[in-house]
Amino acid sequence: MEDCIAKGVKVAHFFTAGFSETGEPERAELEREVLAIAKRGGIRLIGPNCMGVYCPEAGLTFSEAFPREAGSVGMISQSGTNASEFTNRGMLRGLRFSKVVSFGNAADVNAAELFDYLAWDPKTELIAAYLEGVRDARPLFESLRRAAARKPVLILKGGRTEAGSRATASHTSSLAGNDILWDALCRQVGAIRVNSVEEMVDLAVTFRFLRPPQGPRVALLAGGGGISVLSTDEIASAGLQVPPLSDQTRQALRDMVPLAGHSIRNPLDASPLLESRHFAQAYEAIVSSDNIDLLMVMGGGFGPPGTDGDDRTQVILDTIRQKPIKPTAFIVRYGATSREGRAAHDMTDRLIEAGMPAYHSVAGAARAIDRYLRFLRMRNGVTATA
Amino acid sequence: MEDCIAKGVKVAHFFTAGFSETGEPERAELEREVLAIAKRGGIRLIGPNCMGVYCPEAGLTFSEAFPREAGSVGMISQSGTNASEFTNRGMLRGLRFSKVVSFGNAADVNAAELFDYLAWDPKTELIAAYLEGVRDARPLFESLRRAAARKPVLILKGGRTEAGSRATASHTSSLAGNDILWDALCRQVGAIRVNSVEEMVDLAVTFRFLRPPQGPRVALLAGGGGISVLSTDEIASAGLQVPPLSDQTRQALRDMVPLAGHSIRNPLDASPLLESRHFAQAYEAIVSSDNIDLLMVMGGGFGPPGTDGDDRTQVILDTIRQKPIKPTAFIVRYGATSREGRAAHDMTDRLIEAGMPAYHSVAGAARAIDRYLRFLRMRNGVTATA
Repeated sequence: MEDCIAKGVKVAHFFTAGFSETGEPERAELEREVLAIAKRGGIRLIGPNCMGVYCPEAGLTFSEAFPREAGSVGMISQSGTNASEFTNRGMLRGLRFSKVVSFGNAADVNAAELFDYLAWDPKTELIAAYLEGVRDARPLFESLRRAAARKPVLILKGGRTEAGSRATASHTSSLAGNDILWDALCRQVGAIRVNSVEEMVDLAVTFRFLRPPQGPRVALLAGGGGISVLSTDEIASAGLQVPPLSDQTRQALRDMVPLAGHSIRNPLDASPLLESRHFAQAYEAIVSSDNIDLLMVMGGGFGPPGTDGDDRTQVILDTIRQKPIKPTAFIVRYGATSREGRAAHDMTDRLIEAGMPAYHSVAGAARAIDRYLRFLRMRNGVTATA
Repeated sequence: MEDCIAKGVKVAHFFTAGFSETGEPERAELEREVLAIAKRGGIRLIGPNCMGVYCPEAGLTFSEAFPREAGSVGMISQSGTNASEFTNRGMLRGLRFSKVVSFGNAADVNAAELFDYLAWDPKTELIAAYLEGVRDARPLFESLRRAAARKPVLILKGGRTEAGSRATASHTSSLAGNDILWDALCRQVGAIRVNSVEEMVDLAVTFRFLRPPQGPRVALLAGGGGISVLSTDEIASAGLQVPPLSDQTRQALRDMVPLAGHSIRNPLDASPLLESRHFAQAYEAIVSSDNIDLLMVMGGGFGPPGTDGDDRTQVILDTIRQKPIKPTAFIVRYGATSREGRAAHDMTDRLIEAGMPAYHSVAGAARAIDRYLRFLRMRNGVTATA
């Protein structure tokens, strides 16, 4: 440490543990000592009990697996594993990052300062945060308010239950605080609270890749009756709507879909509409409907090239890019087998390359899109409706 | 059909569609005609608009992918895709099946008859059902009551929302009925209602592979602080408990886990305990605790053979099988990448071979185990407590 001071180091991050989070007095004392030395030498400390900083633009990382390419998502995390989890899962969904900061016990640099930093960082367009607790609530509240006024902020709070809260004490020596207070805090400043890393990734993907829908009315294009029914239940339960299609729209689709084994109501249990010869016409008929705000396309039916050599996926993607009439979201469900898992990965990659929002479950997509719509309504000053 | 009658056929299943579910009067009439002819000839009809029967013992199937080996799970479904989905996902989690019946529009053989059949079928130990609606509520109610009095019954109801209910009409021409009534019906007869195929599989796996815990108090053994905190929140939110470990238990574990980067409270953020040299002692210390009813082990830490050639997974499985002190559940999380997905599949296979319950998410496992405990309490006539 003394050596760092002599060399004029400005910031040190402690990719290490064994300090105040252990609950041992002598370890907590060690943390205070390190901090005092750093303060004397004018060094800012990130950590301890953290993994530090990933900043691809500066060539800085704490995992070799993270992308070298930079992006617009900023993330701060009191947990190194959750920072990695968000970055690893997010990168496979097309997210790229400006800065990801795992800051552990926050002995010096704290969440409030990091929110302020990302709020004014021109490279960051969306802020995600995993927090376990806070020693000084007022500065955090103020910085969160400033950040949320400038950019969308997603908050994942660890320790929302009593048992989880006990766990945060031994993880980052945090006082987790009352769960209801965190809810109120997020609502008051306009931050979006999520309950899992998966939900956080789904929301970040939505902000990054889904054009803002004008309303909550979904057309669901799927294949399989029972799956369409359950998916419709999930979309409606999340707060979105699946309204009946107009007679005019149904008329336009009728000739493309055999009567038996399909349905051209909404949900559309109608995989033939995803065929290359039909998709452009079907897409236009559906998204031109007055009572539809966005299209959700459920995977499986738009798989690898057909035996006739046509690349069905390419046709679908080209059609949507050439005529982006209404926002379109894709659901690539993971199949049961390992082979299906690889196919789902490949399909997800193609969608991301085309700049499309790709989700892995209908429930996850619907929840994220509903939260996104509520956020847009709030920001536009319109009262939220069901 | 006339030909079938002449040949003395007793039952026909219609792996086809295009009948009353289309909403077209002439198609509905066709269904009635087929039914009338069958009745005249003494043939029972399964369907139409279905996939029919999978009965491995009889060598009968509607998918080549289903296992040839028979088992104890019976399933009936008004949707062929959901029957396949449950069977496909369930078989990879170790479930095997007595009979799976996709019965579509239920023009003749209906849910009530099928519940009665499975309730008295000696090969069936658990009954799962995907239902969209019913024409005649009273017989269904009575047969469901009889079935649930004899065996655990899982009910997945499609069309629980208004939009989903509209979708059932065009799928199997069902009247989905009031969602609150279905809740009340399930509670009254003691059936377990689930909201997704995944939840149904999680519950079937729990009934099949998890020994009944004496209570809801979980010890969570994981690796990674932030993930342990969020997992604890998920377990507690599902209704289970994650109580602090006794000083005695912590004392017994202390020497096996370095202080820095770990925690031997509960959750146990302590992957060293999964090492071959430690696991037997750690397992015994944890599950011998008076205030612990079951152990949940979260994957990652118990991967493929180490560089020293020891097979850590085998040590863990052998230890638990030799001393099944308390029920143990494994969570094999799917990693972000395709390679991690394959590793998770392989690990799941090994757990199943050893007769262990394997789940893919902490939230899913906790929800299923909580429902299982409530079911056991109800059946034992004990009032359910939080």
